[in-house]
Amino acid sequence: MKRDELYVGVDLGGTNVRAAVVDLGGHVLGQEKHRLLSREPPQVAEAVVRAAKTACGAAGMPFGEMKGMGVGVAGWIERGTGMVMNAPNLGWREVPFLKLVQARAPRLPMWIGNDLSVAAWGERAAGAGRGVDDLIVVLVGSGVGAGIILGGKLHEGVSGVAGEFGHILVHPGGRLCGCGQRGCLEAYAGGHNLAAWARDDLRIAMAAARAAGERHPAVGRKLLEIAGEPDKVTAAAMERAAHEGDELSRRLLEEAGNLLGVALSNLVTVLNPARLLLGGGVLTGSPRMMRAAMEQIDAHTSKAARKALKISAPELGEQAGVVGAALLARASLAQAA
Amino acid sequence: MKRDELYVGVDLGGTNVRAAVVDLGGHVLGQEKHRLLSREPPQVAEAVVRAAKTACGAAGMPFGEMKGMGVGVAGWIERGTGMVMNAPNLGWREVPFLKLVQARAPRLPMWIGNDLSVAAWGERAAGAGRGVDDLIVVLVGSGVGAGIILGGKLHEGVSGVAGEFGHILVHPGGRLCGCGQRGCLEAYAGGHNLAAWARDDLRIAMAAARAAGERHPAVGRKLLEIAGEPDKVTAAAMERAAHEGDELSRRLLEEAGNLLGVALSNLVTVLNPARLLLGGGVLTGSPRMMRAAMEQIDAHTSKAARKALKISAPELGEQAGVVGAALLARASLAQAA
Repeated sequence: MKRDELYVGVDLGGTNVRAAVVDLGGHVLGQEKHRLLSREPPQVAEAVVRAAKTACGAAGMPFGEMKGMGVGVAGWIERGTGMVMNAPNLGWREVPFLKLVQARAPRLPMWIGNDLSVAAWGERAAGAGRGVDDLIVVLVGSGVGAGIILGGKLHEGVSGVAGEFGHILVHPGGRLCGCGQRGCLEAYAGGHNLAAWARDDLRIAMAAARAAGERHPAVGRKLLEIAGEPDKVTAAAMERAAHEGDELSRRLLEEAGNLLGVALSNLVTVLNPARLLLGGGVLTGSPRMMRAAMEQIDAHTSKAARKALKISAPELGEQAGVVGAALLARASLAQAA
Repeated sequence: MKRDELYVGVDLGGTNVRAAVVDLGGHVLGQEKHRLLSREPPQVAEAVVRAAKTACGAAGMPFGEMKGMGVGVAGWIERGTGMVMNAPNLGWREVPFLKLVQARAPRLPMWIGNDLSVAAWGERAAGAGRGVDDLIVVLVGSGVGAGIILGGKLHEGVSGVAGEFGHILVHPGGRLCGCGQRGCLEAYAGGHNLAAWARDDLRIAMAAARAAGERHPAVGRKLLEIAGEPDKVTAAAMERAAHEGDELSRRLLEEAGNLLGVALSNLVTVLNPARLLLGGGVLTGSPRMMRAAMEQIDAHTSKAARKALKISAPELGEQAGVVGAALLARASLAQAA
């Protein structure tokens, strides 16, 4: 290993910042994770550089010997400028974040991009997408998004906003999404929205039960028992309740899985990728949602595209962000040079 | 113009073969079009080479001085092998067409690909997508398909079947498509299927009228008048009838446009292209379908992706195929070299 081939990767979430020193094989040589104490952009920029330096310390490498730094942020990063146009988890709009970080580490070449892009690149470099040139990673957590690699290149879109898979329309006139639109995929399959959907149904069922003088709602009784009260319903509680026979939970998890599966089958039919990695906390935590999605993919994807497709789970977990950010920094900086 | 920089482009349809001599600027120097007298693969291969030679004659250039030849075929062409896996218009399955053509012009480097890919490449090289690196061309004729260029490269998919936009699922459990699936976009917006849909509705309305002792169906009367009988309904007749107030025609054209528009908005949200070219005989011939599609695109595409997108019409028309095939041959052969 030559010292001059190390990069720092940073994964910036709404709560934590993670950083790691990564070699060209995608191995993590040292890392650091700490909570964000403030969401003010200058403080966050400080925290990013501090985490990067601490990770270098953990790897026993001087920060000054890093070849570059990559930062992945959950949100829309404008291509070219490194401006964070919108990052809901951080409450940011049009924050010139790349510049803020660069001001604190002026000699280090830097790259900044979207967290899903970064995760896809990490999986391709050192995870379940190793060596695959046409790869799509879809993560279903509280949000739903995709990282897209085509022809061996990251596809970020002309303005950097490609991969907004959670905001495709799957149900015209349907449930309201956090983005302000109705009927987005994320309005059904995203963890918070899925739980809110069950809560809404549960409240209706409870009101109906009260009106009829019944003690228990006709559906969702087991879910209510597990969650304690509607406000405490989570996607995880829904999966547990469904497993114990709760009809309301089963239906919503399956419906979310169906909508997700049709959307995925359409994506695969149009793009004909070699591999699809399906992950994220909500999907991984719900075998029912996963099964429903897989059934739709098998039923509706064009035969030729389905035949060429391998579906598996991401391998890097939380490391995908730091590894991908480091290696994307390398790829982007090499291309620019 | 150097003589050694000319390519032949061939556009092979189910009825006609067109060929043209094209320079690097996408200009057509000479061309030829003739009807296919047979659909037997060897005869078609003969016809392709003959058309190419005739086009050379028209351009005043010896066939032997062409640098390469590109052929666009409506269907699924396997990447790498040049095998036509499926070409419904020609009734072909697994025809080693590239080899058949190569055997008849052994010294000429050749490339073969899908007609939509070819059209997209032609528009990018010399038409409405000139200089645009992230470009999607969607044509709505009797079939519905997309040609996808991302990062300046044609995206054919890992097995060559990307762009099957007509076979994404837009209406679960809906009308039967020619591909054997239900609810595909093409089952609604493709010209033949759209007309069949109107015919089915018209027959139902006519039977209901007969049963009620009425002379005229409650809906579709104007369409029936224009077409003469249900069997003669076409997409063009529907547009004319809608223009004259026919409610059945208006509804189906708008519904097809709505389904098309939502599918397009999702495609744009996920891929964030710079330009979308919308064409094809059915869509171009129906201002109603186009208007409905545009309204859905404006309403549902993610704001950032919509803002970056310019929508226009293809410019090359029938020339897109021969120009694109010639220039794709050049791009692919240059890359392979």
